[in-house]
Amino acid sequence: METNLQFRLAARPVGMVKDSDWQQADEPLRPLADGEIRVKVLYLSLDPAMRGWMNEGKSYIRPVAIGEVMRAGGVGVVVASKSPKFAVGDHVSGGTGVQRYWTGAADDKSGAFYKIDPTLAPLTTYLNTLGMPGMTAYFGLLESGQPKAGDTVVVSGAAGAVGQTVGQVAKQLGCRVVGIAGGKDKCDFVVNQLGFDACIDYKNDSVKDGLKQHCPQGVDVYFDNVGGEILDTVLTRINLKARIVICGAISQYNNTTAVKGPSNYLSLLVNRARMEGIVVFDYADRYHLGVAALAGWMKEGKVKSKEDIVQGLENFPQALNMLFEGKNFGKLVLQVATP
Amino acid sequence: METNLQFRLAARPVGMVKDSDWQQADEPLRPLADGEIRVKVLYLSLDPAMRGWMNEGKSYIRPVAIGEVMRAGGVGVVVASKSPKFAVGDHVSGGTGVQRYWTGAADDKSGAFYKIDPTLAPLTTYLNTLGMPGMTAYFGLLESGQPKAGDTVVVSGAAGAVGQTVGQVAKQLGCRVVGIAGGKDKCDFVVNQLGFDACIDYKNDSVKDGLKQHCPQGVDVYFDNVGGEILDTVLTRINLKARIVICGAISQYNNTTAVKGPSNYLSLLVNRARMEGIVVFDYADRYHLGVAALAGWMKEGKVKSKEDIVQGLENFPQALNMLFEGKNFGKLVLQVATP
Repeated sequence: METNLQFRLAARPVGMVKDSDWQQADEPLRPLADGEIRVKVLYLSLDPAMRGWMNEGKSYIRPVAIGEVMRAGGVGVVVASKSPKFAVGDHVSGGTGVQRYWTGAADDKSGAFYKIDPTLAPLTTYLNTLGMPGMTAYFGLLESGQPKAGDTVVVSGAAGAVGQTVGQVAKQLGCRVVGIAGGKDKCDFVVNQLGFDACIDYKNDSVKDGLKQHCPQGVDVYFDNVGGEILDTVLTRINLKARIVICGAISQYNNTTAVKGPSNYLSLLVNRARMEGIVVFDYADRYHLGVAALAGWMKEGKVKSKEDIVQGLENFPQALNMLFEGKNFGKLVLQVATP
Repeated sequence: METNLQFRLAARPVGMVKDSDWQQADEPLRPLADGEIRVKVLYLSLDPAMRGWMNEGKSYIRPVAIGEVMRAGGVGVVVASKSPKFAVGDHVSGGTGVQRYWTGAADDKSGAFYKIDPTLAPLTTYLNTLGMPGMTAYFGLLESGQPKAGDTVVVSGAAGAVGQTVGQVAKQLGCRVVGIAGGKDKCDFVVNQLGFDACIDYKNDSVKDGLKQHCPQGVDVYFDNVGGEILDTVLTRINLKARIVICGAISQYNNTTAVKGPSNYLSLLVNRARMEGIVVFDYADRYHLGVAALAGWMKEGKVKSKEDIVQGLENFPQALNMLFEGKNFGKLVLQVATP
């Protein structure tokens, strides 16, 4: 009989996550109780935020406990149901965790499953543009970034899950969009496929020079996914009343020393500018609006999505670390089973 | 005949300002041209921002040039006038510079003189609560801090010019107000004379412990005048949707190495909080509203002001450095002449 392979958190990582921070468990599938469903996981979303969930301490969501199945979003198919809410064969998105099967109450809060339509968009899109990264990009940019037509919008991690959508949405709003990404391939993709006006390759070129060249009118909105030196450099180029959206700081998540604070934060004072943090869950009651807007643009070919799909649940530890090594090209997805 | 003693900028300081960064000049008083006035300076405002004006580089205002009279706000009395705008005997406030006499066109932009009423409030109040520090406190707190009744407001430099007014205005709005200041005397003053709910003595006590004790509901608004370690510590105690007003960073102005960025800035993300810079000049068209509100509260005894008055223009260099040594107690004012 089939079993449920799981990745559980074995230890709180110090710096980069090591194989020994994970414990693999392989459990039998238990029978369903009334009101429960079983979801066969097809794709898992691998996100930078997962690194934060592995740390102890107060955050916007409780840490994953030692011994607990690692938290992750995923899409799957209902393979057994004792709930009227879902039928066998339904495709769903929710908090599956890093495992082959999720089993629990249909209305479980941490699962928070909802039906998705595999005929409208590829399943992986529901983990990307029509999922959390897309919602983060859409609401973070609009609500906190408040871009106006003609503004210059800079986004780091431009080829990543959130960055690709931030830039494309900003283009729809009539902004000049400049990405920052690592390597020529990512930069070419962002400009040629996604339609950004320019992209700065931070691995090979000077971000400072790139901003001077590509943002001749300064920076009105900076959507920051990376933190560190890049945030500090952008701070030197912001305009009066600029808005900096702090979405993440992937360059700092595996630090074993203190996070590098932005030394140039007094540019906020000089420019009467703002730096604000965002968390996607705050917009949950309006996700449907973001999905509608993005799905509409996707249908018209105005917004594209790119996923980087790694095969096999057993490769989870190595796949997750790709994020922190800048190795993924597009939204990183782990394929767990064949749809 | 009387001459005009002036302090001109001789060199751009590195770290703390040295005597050799100043050049004293003693010039004869020139005759007035048509449209000009001569202001005898009575009191000069000494402000942390002056240190920034001495540095080269883009800021919210052009740097003082080498050889130029040091920029400063002051109050004085018109002693000669060839302008219908001001009569001899008028008391005025404006950009006098660090000198005994200001001479120039009555409508000069850098002077920007306006009449003040010495019977309504002591002249030094026009450099404090009813002047730039008061306007900075009033508009910075209200517009950027957006305090609501019941919020906990923390302000650093609590006994200083801006801090004292921030705290007192926040009390008028029904907030819990906790100051941070250096030394027992300043803390006692802030609590006993100004009516703050508590004050943390950063020189003798742990700011972290003080915040835990005095802000049991967390921090909703932090008005920051100091930067550095104190900003970083407050960041660990902010609430969801907290507002941090960046007004200054006096702990960092004399750094010879890079400014210390706030290592805990990711608390903005976790708490969906905001950090925003303010510059008082942005509110210039509404100063009269701030003056009216503060003068009203002062008249009712609800807002008090404290100035620390140092005597003698010749003592300007030492007096200015008192700000950065935390030696002033209240708004620092240099008395240049007897009213």
